Amino acid sequence: MLQSQLFTKTKKDAPKDEVSNNAQLLIRGGFINKEMAGVYSYLPLGLKVLNKIINIIRQEMNEIGGQEVLLGSLQDPTIWQKTDRWDDKKVGIWFKSKLNAGGEVGLANTHEEPMVVMLKQHINSYKDLPVYTYQFQNKFRNELRAKSGIMRTREFIMKDMYSFSKNQEDLDTFYEQVAVAYTKIFERCGIGAKTYKTFASGGIFSKFSHEFQTVSAAGEDTIYISKEKNIAINDEVYNDQVLNDLRLKKEDLEKVKAIEIGNIFKLGNRFSSALGLQYTDDKGERNDVIMGCYGIGPGRLMGTIVELLSQENKINWPKEVSPFDVHIIGLSLDNEEVTKLAQEKYKELTDKGIDVLFDDRLNISAGQKFADADLIGIPERIIIGKESL
Amino acid sequence: MLQSQLFTKTKKDAPKDEVSNNAQLLIRGGFINKEMAGVYSYLPLGLKVLNKIINIIRQEMNEIGGQEVLLGSLQDPTIWQKTDRWDDKKVGIWFKSKLNAGGEVGLANTHEEPMVVMLKQHINSYKDLPVYTYQFQNKFRNELRAKSGIMRTREFIMKDMYSFSKNQEDLDTFYEQVAVAYTKIFERCGIGAKTYKTFASGGIFSKFSHEFQTVSAAGEDTIYISKEKNIAINDEVYNDQVLNDLRLKKEDLEKVKAIEIGNIFKLGNRFSSALGLQYTDDKGERNDVIMGCYGIGPGRLMGTIVELLSQENKINWPKEVSPFDVHIIGLSLDNEEVTKLAQEKYKELTDKGIDVLFDDRLNISAGQKFADADLIGIPERIIIGKESL
Repeated sequence: MLQSQLFTKTKKDAPKDEVSNNAQLLIRGGFINKEMAGVYSYLPLGLKVLNKIINIIRQEMNEIGGQEVLLGSLQDPTIWQKTDRWDDKKVGIWFKSKLNAGGEVGLANTHEEPMVVMLKQHINSYKDLPVYTYQFQNKFRNELRAKSGIMRTREFIMKDMYSFSKNQEDLDTFYEQVAVAYTKIFERCGIGAKTYKTFASGGIFSKFSHEFQTVSAAGEDTIYISKEKNIAINDEVYNDQVLNDLRLKKEDLEKVKAIEIGNIFKLGNRFSSALGLQYTDDKGERNDVIMGCYGIGPGRLMGTIVELLSQENKINWPKEVSPFDVHIIGLSLDNEEVTKLAQEKYKELTDKGIDVLFDDRLNISAGQKFADADLIGIPERIIIGKESL
Repeated sequence: MLQSQLFTKTKKDAPKDEVSNNAQLLIRGGFINKEMAGVYSYLPLGLKVLNKIINIIRQEMNEIGGQEVLLGSLQDPTIWQKTDRWDDKKVGIWFKSKLNAGGEVGLANTHEEPMVVMLKQHINSYKDLPVYTYQFQNKFRNELRAKSGIMRTREFIMKDMYSFSKNQEDLDTFYEQVAVAYTKIFERCGIGAKTYKTFASGGIFSKFSHEFQTVSAAGEDTIYISKEKNIAINDEVYNDQVLNDLRLKKEDLEKVKAIEIGNIFKLGNRFSSALGLQYTDDKGERNDVIMGCYGIGPGRLMGTIVELLSQENKINWPKEVSPFDVHIIGLSLDNEEVTKLAQEKYKELTDKGIDVLFDDRLNISAGQKFADADLIGIPERIIIGKESL
């Protein structure tokens, strides 16, 4: 793409009302725009990064047998009443709205209920299991305080996967496969080394759930990491009993701030029982389907990458999520020969299928071009000026 | 993909509460699921078709210089108050919700306002124009009656493009380019021959807007088509004066029902003036940016394709939007040699990058396999059975 055509402009200064480092840099680079507290738009560069992250996640979900679907945002209260998650006193983050036709709808903050109800149409026998569904769909959360830039917003895209298995054993096996897939995703996104599989509070069906926590001063969570064993414990379950269970010693752990970028959770029959998702086993008996859920927020992941890999005035995108593969920076483009050389290079790379941003802008100083390139953060840079002739 | 792995099942009968032909067939084929009145989910086959339609539209929008963005669904009332479109008496289809932090938000039913406000950050001089932005983003419309399957829903994905030009002349030129791009899109989706560029009511800034209407008994609109001139007039502007303007004769026109699958509209300075989107021209004077907007609903387009190109119990996807390129139907798979042959064919095509659905299911009769294949509607079919040996 020709940079002269890109409608976004970089900004020298961060917006005054934006305190988080990730949003400051992403707004200055022209990746995102703040629409209101907790609501951001993705501009062309930002959408390209977001889609690259989404595609990495999609590949790894398909790799373990995930099938992609897309559910609605508007929610029918009746199915949430059956699981006791409609009442604002039980779930405080609903956005609800009146229907002109009468009644009420909610905006999905998660999708267990409609996913289970949909699958009642397609799961009947043990032969139909397992099923792994996932989607990239907006979640809406009526947070009292939106904060941390694109890390905690009122509206955000979420990859949510749900697994449907015959029994606990099959769930346990798949749960471990997802954990491995998540590790791959975070490695491909360039933050694997700082990300820990973290023991967190479970529920009725499992002692622990697991979060994927990335060590960062910008994080909201406190975790205790064991660098040696490459695992961590969330503050919420950090006690002597748990340390003992996990064979960890207090003195080997380091207390750090971290960002939760993913989580995996065993749900058992919590939702299948309440909503009537059963299957017939090979003896002809009806059993509840055993479920798990697995989340990653691609937007939060993008914010975390910026928090971890940026410096002042400079974003450093890892190769796999960079908005373009190569940034050609044309200097002295008033010189016809230089322009010709730069255009040839642009064509040569583009013809090879390489996605190039070519800074072809006239009347912009070299200093400004480099400052812009720093903010845009493409890792591979080719500078073409008079010296290149 | 192995069909034995696909979690969706076809259904023999249409759901009782679904009257529209498109939704009946799409539900029976396992493409969509009805979550509630006016809200449908896309299942793996349906999402593949939807994404193919989206990619066709994306290609054609990029071709004419469109830059893709993604705005939020949650809307800040203050910007809609400035254009007088927040009041429920003026715009009756808002979903509104209370913010826990105080105040109110709306769910976007269109995106002119936030798009203009965002572009105030990036447009300042005539050198910054034109700008063409587009997105695929959910719209929410609090319709009194949701109807016609996936044609009129309360929540749907929309491709909305907005153009920002220096003056009316530039807008007029781009408007015609979009019309040509739209024609290409509908041709690629297999419904070009039945789709008419239709004169419809304009606004302050233009005598007419244009709709793209596809002739179908399932349509909600009435239009008068001229097959000879390949244009049409919407009932709402059909009168002697307009006939005269367009040099059309009553007797050459045919009155038909049609589905509106796209529209293009000149907005002038309606929104830029109210929201303060101005640019400095080459004489140093400030002027309102001149806008246009251009919509296509990919879901409605999918429903229209089904309405037009299906028979009873059979969907016929055009090649470019088919969920898979080829459907291999394996018969007599209890025979090892047949299975081997079918698997080899599957591998051969897949290795070539051809997207294949392979019906590898055991213990399913040939009749059932053909009935399922009819509902799934992949145009190219390879049957492998004992006769193939």
